[in-house]
Amino acid sequence: RAGGRAFSNMAVGYNNVDVNAANKYGVAVGNTPGVLTETTAELAASLSVSAARRIVEADEFMRAGLYDGWLPHLFVGNLLKGQTVGVIGAGRIGSAYARMMIEGFKMNLIYYDLYQATRLEKFVTAYGEFLKANGEPPVTWKRASSMEEVLREADVISLHPILDKTTYHLINKERLSMMKKEAILVNCSRGPVVDEVALVEHLKENPMFRVGLDVFEDEPYMKPGLADMKNAIVVPHIASASKWTREGMATLAALNVLGKIKGYPVWSDPNRVEPFLNKNSPPPAASPSIVNAKALGLTASKL
Amino acid sequence: RAGGRAFSNMAVGYNNVDVNAANKYGVAVGNTPGVLTETTAELAASLSVSAARRIVEADEFMRAGLYDGWLPHLFVGNLLKGQTVGVIGAGRIGSAYARMMIEGFKMNLIYYDLYQATRLEKFVTAYGEFLKANGEPPVTWKRASSMEEVLREADVISLHPILDKTTYHLINKERLSMMKKEAILVNCSRGPVVDEVALVEHLKENPMFRVGLDVFEDEPYMKPGLADMKNAIVVPHIASASKWTREGMATLAALNVLGKIKGYPVWSDPNRVEPFLNKNSPPPAASPSIVNAKALGLTASKL
Repeated sequence: RAGGRAFSNMAVGYNNVDVNAANKYGVAVGNTPGVLTETTAELAASLSVSAARRIVEADEFMRAGLYDGWLPHLFVGNLLKGQTVGVIGAGRIGSAYARMMIEGFKMNLIYYDLYQATRLEKFVTAYGEFLKANGEPPVTWKRASSMEEVLREADVISLHPILDKTTYHLINKERLSMMKKEAILVNCSRGPVVDEVALVEHLKENPMFRVGLDVFEDEPYMKPGLADMKNAIVVPHIASASKWTREGMATLAALNVLGKIKGYPVWSDPNRVEPFLNKNSPPPAASPSIVNAKALGLTASKL
Repeated sequence: RAGGRAFSNMAVGYNNVDVNAANKYGVAVGNTPGVLTETTAELAASLSVSAARRIVEADEFMRAGLYDGWLPHLFVGNLLKGQTVGVIGAGRIGSAYARMMIEGFKMNLIYYDLYQATRLEKFVTAYGEFLKANGEPPVTWKRASSMEEVLREADVISLHPILDKTTYHLINKERLSMMKKEAILVNCSRGPVVDEVALVEHLKENPMFRVGLDVFEDEPYMKPGLADMKNAIVVPHIASASKWTREGMATLAALNVLGKIKGYPVWSDPNRVEPFLNKNSPPPAASPSIVNAKALGLTASKL
């Protein structure tokens, strides 16, 4: 109605947009993939190692002036080295996260995904051989035949599925009970993947079970009791909050709109957007990512 | 006076023991090196990535119920990938930490040490070549000719020097001012390595400068103002607080005492103590680490 010709989210998701209506009025709908992967995976890694060493509760204790001298049992956590990292959903973000934990902390991998993560498997095999050649114990990987296998075997588990009917409350009371009593669970995907009421109950019953959450079922709210749990780390949906990513998202959103106005073609791979972010050269003459390009008959860039 | 024949700290340091008096009375003084390296390095890594993503202040904000919806500028932090990690003191712990940040987060290394960290340099070179062979950008390393070079160039800096007269207040007002305005400083070594009063001042003046501290000048106390700084993470000397390490320390301390009573020789390399910690076989007939073995004329184990 406003007569606009282009719109862009500054996000990957676009369930806030009526794409059918946009198609009808010829409005391009942009989004900004390609710049969130590493930043999101780094937040999952950050929550994992913070939970492993109980950083938030230890900081609160120190800041409250409760520390009065070194004690052998004060905030004892996990040594990650040699433990097993479990990844549920080994797409771009899940695979990037897996590599951080495997390479950084010499953890072994177990993952569950409907699709085989061939690239990740090959990399971990090659990396294990590299370590062995360097005289160190190799790391291993395993593709689990069920999600339950991951839940039972892993010491640190990070969730990276898409959210749909099949993944709603994927982590429920029954599946929580399969996990190790001292396991760490991280969710930087979507809130409803975890049954948050069941999680609060599980945290209460298992004081050494720890969780790192970036997303919540009723965002921006938390289910009752979660804010009181010392074995939880809760952050306000900041998975993509790095300077590099947020500037990149803003740049890509602007270039999506500019490209449509200028009549540029659409970039052929919305996940390979580095040329748009290079400060030393002008961006390609293309829209980085238009989700309804096909419906609007926009041509793909050959660049 | 009590007539004891053996004593062991459950720690690496032993400045709490009068070793000369122990020598005079023939008392063996044990300590527990060899099991702290990885756990301490993992805490430094944990503080680094927590500070990079502002985990503690973000958790406090969320828990206080202040979050009311996604915002592009909420708790924007650093993407570690491609940034530079600075290590001051590249001994066992410093090198282990460096590898976590290099391999885990694809950071480039700059380090300062009086001694060349040949093993670390060789490893990073080989790892860079491994990444390149895998079609990825390599990581790089540089040995700095001065500590100031590390302070100026690195984005994340971790301190791993020993504490002596030359490293007292190594990080002072002048050196803090050389660091990037958005740098991250981590100290899991000894409190007095940092001038804590100058640090508090620097944190106040540079809100995006962040720090992760496990040790303090007046431990268990903090200098005035530190507990109020949102850009600080403070934990109560928990660098060695993993279950694996603490159990290992207790085992080694007990075996130090047992070895002296039984008249066993002293283990030849106190940093290679894995055989003492293997739950599936009895420990070697030796004391793992006796610091005054030479003065007492104890023989070294050939094992």
